[in-house]
Amino acid sequence: MYDGIVQDLIDEFGRLPGIGPKSAQRIAFHILQTQSFDVSKLAELLSEVREKVRFCDECGNITEQEKCSICRDPRRDRTLICVVEEPKDVVAIERTRQFRGLYHVLGGAISPIDGIGPDDLSIPALMRRLGEGEVQEVILATDPNLEGEATAAYLSRLLTSIEVPVSRLASGLPVGGDLEFADEVTLGRAFEGRRKVE
Amino acid sequence: MYDGIVQDLIDEFGRLPGIGPKSAQRIAFHILQTQSFDVSKLAELLSEVREKVRFCDECGNITEQEKCSICRDPRRDRTLICVVEEPKDVVAIERTRQFRGLYHVLGGAISPIDGIGPDDLSIPALMRRLGEGEVQEVILATDPNLEGEATAAYLSRLLTSIEVPVSRLASGLPVGGDLEFADEVTLGRAFEGRRKVE
Repeated sequence: MYDGIVQDLIDEFGRLPGIGPKSAQRIAFHILQTQSFDVSKLAELLSEVREKVRFCDECGNITEQEKCSICRDPRRDRTLICVVEEPKDVVAIERTRQFRGLYHVLGGAISPIDGIGPDDLSIPALMRRLGEGEVQEVILATDPNLEGEATAAYLSRLLTSIEVPVSRLASGLPVGGDLEFADEVTLGRAFEGRRKVE
Repeated sequence: MYDGIVQDLIDEFGRLPGIGPKSAQRIAFHILQTQSFDVSKLAELLSEVREKVRFCDECGNITEQEKCSICRDPRRDRTLICVVEEPKDVVAIERTRQFRGLYHVLGGAISPIDGIGPDDLSIPALMRRLGEGEVQEVILATDPNLEGEATAAYLSRLLTSIEVPVSRLASGLPVGGDLEFADEVTLGRAFEGRRKVE
């Protein structure tokens, strides 16, 4: 409906998750009309982000260096590993300030419908870390939904071979939801009440 | 909560209208993780859009040329001018396919609270266009809210000095809303039932 480049910009914004055509239009006009909005900064960040951001060699979290800030932090408890699906789950858990161990980011969850199997997740790296013998507890903090539960069940079976207690985040998280949307209190309580996987 | 550039990107997206911190985070991760999403295209469009997009010399609509595609179109009825607040209102009306005249984009509405008076709108340009004598009807299609009604009232008083019938979009538009969000049928009906301003 618009001439050339404005429509292109609206279309491009409309491809982002959660942005419909009306929102995309609103954003495009905001950018066009608001002089204080720093267009070049957003453009630069977009160009840089894929180039500079990488995954932590140790845990798979996002970072701009070889290891992420959590793995580099000497004050973290290296005997505890919390296994999560995505880097944003790390941020959600960090916000509770209840966990002082390290993380392991799987890069997703087992989901046959989406064609994601155990081989698509960073499970070998997790096994290698556990094999080093320093870890004394593994907390499975995958999402409390179908895929997350399946992943936790798969991992708990796999980890029976290793002499390390494995726990799963307690109920307290709303079932069927996404971990990243839980509030801090609920998530904190889930940490407190984590139970051993038999 | 994130390392450097990722947080910068989230913050930058969070400054756009209608995008909260959670949506901004979701968008940033989508960009990081979805290889099919063309980051450089969005970055380029952002850099180009402010540079290339300008306002039509005649009507004030957005365009990449001197005149917008509607003003350049020889099939449009040059005796009719529809006065709107924003370029997105032009698009909303074009979608009804009921109006074949030209537009005049004011660039906003009179709003004392926001410090926008008649002098901040492109009213002199409208008067100049009407002074050329070709126009036989002016349709006031400002938003059916407080600011839009005030602007329409101001313009209708101003236009009594000119021998041109002035009409206002009919009721049918939901009062208190924004023109751009009206559905096509309602907006089309409002065009049909427009009434002369006494």
